[in-house]
Amino acid sequence: MEKIPILRMGPFLLVTIQVDLYDRLALNLEADLIETVHKTGARGVLIDISAVSIVDSFMGRILGNIAGMSRILDAQTVVVGMQPAVAITLIELGLPLKGIHTALNVEKGIEKLRATIPPDDEETDDDYYFQ
Amino acid sequence: MEKIPILRMGPFLLVTIQVDLYDRLALNLEADLIETVHKTGARGVLIDISAVSIVDSFMGRILGNIAGMSRILDAQTVVVGMQPAVAITLIELGLPLKGIHTALNVEKGIEKLRATIPPDDEETDDDYYFQ
Repeated sequence: MEKIPILRMGPFLLVTIQVDLYDRLALNLEADLIETVHKTGARGVLIDISAVSIVDSFMGRILGNIAGMSRILDAQTVVVGMQPAVAITLIELGLPLKGIHTALNVEKGIEKLRATIPPDDEETDDDYYFQ
Repeated sequence: MEKIPILRMGPFLLVTIQVDLYDRLALNLEADLIETVHKTGARGVLIDISAVSIVDSFMGRILGNIAGMSRILDAQTVVVGMQPAVAITLIELGLPLKGIHTALNVEKGIEKLRATIPPDDEETDDDYYFQ
């Protein structure tokens, strides 16, 4: 399966990374994600990396790219579910993931994103999402 | 990566299947999922198969197992994001996924699940989830 699914959850998009990101797959993910943010007007992107046990500078760069692209389209990116070992590796690699929000899990990530959305938008999204 | 992450979203659990399920992985997923339902008291399980382009009787059986196990633990299972080709294949294979709820996407799946939860529970979950 050559595509990482992007799930829409109300005003946010959720991506769970379960496979090792090689160049083509990563570039496809970047393109799909930005395209989806643009199409849906999503306000936030949640990237779950709880299944990622090994992270390298490439992965770090991809996360940074996605966050940067999303920001330009007015969507915040939150990386969730990072394993402790991964956090250690990132710092040891000298990749502090600057400009990327993180949260312990998806729920905390959603809370973080909701805090970034203006109340009126949020209400609309609530109505839309939870009817 | 030998583990499919299970994401908790309020009263529900979300699993996105992105890799081909071979025996060991499928059995692990079954075990992890049921364990998580038990631990979190989740009321529903969403299984996203939008990345699954080829489905066989094994996959069909796994989905049935998960739905059955969850039901015993008082959690409903909804399979979401099925590709049209997959639906065709399932029927041609004679696997109508009896006893498994389906929905077009995660949002519709959540709506379906919320409809199955008693209002009082739901309120509590809302409060818990959206503070």
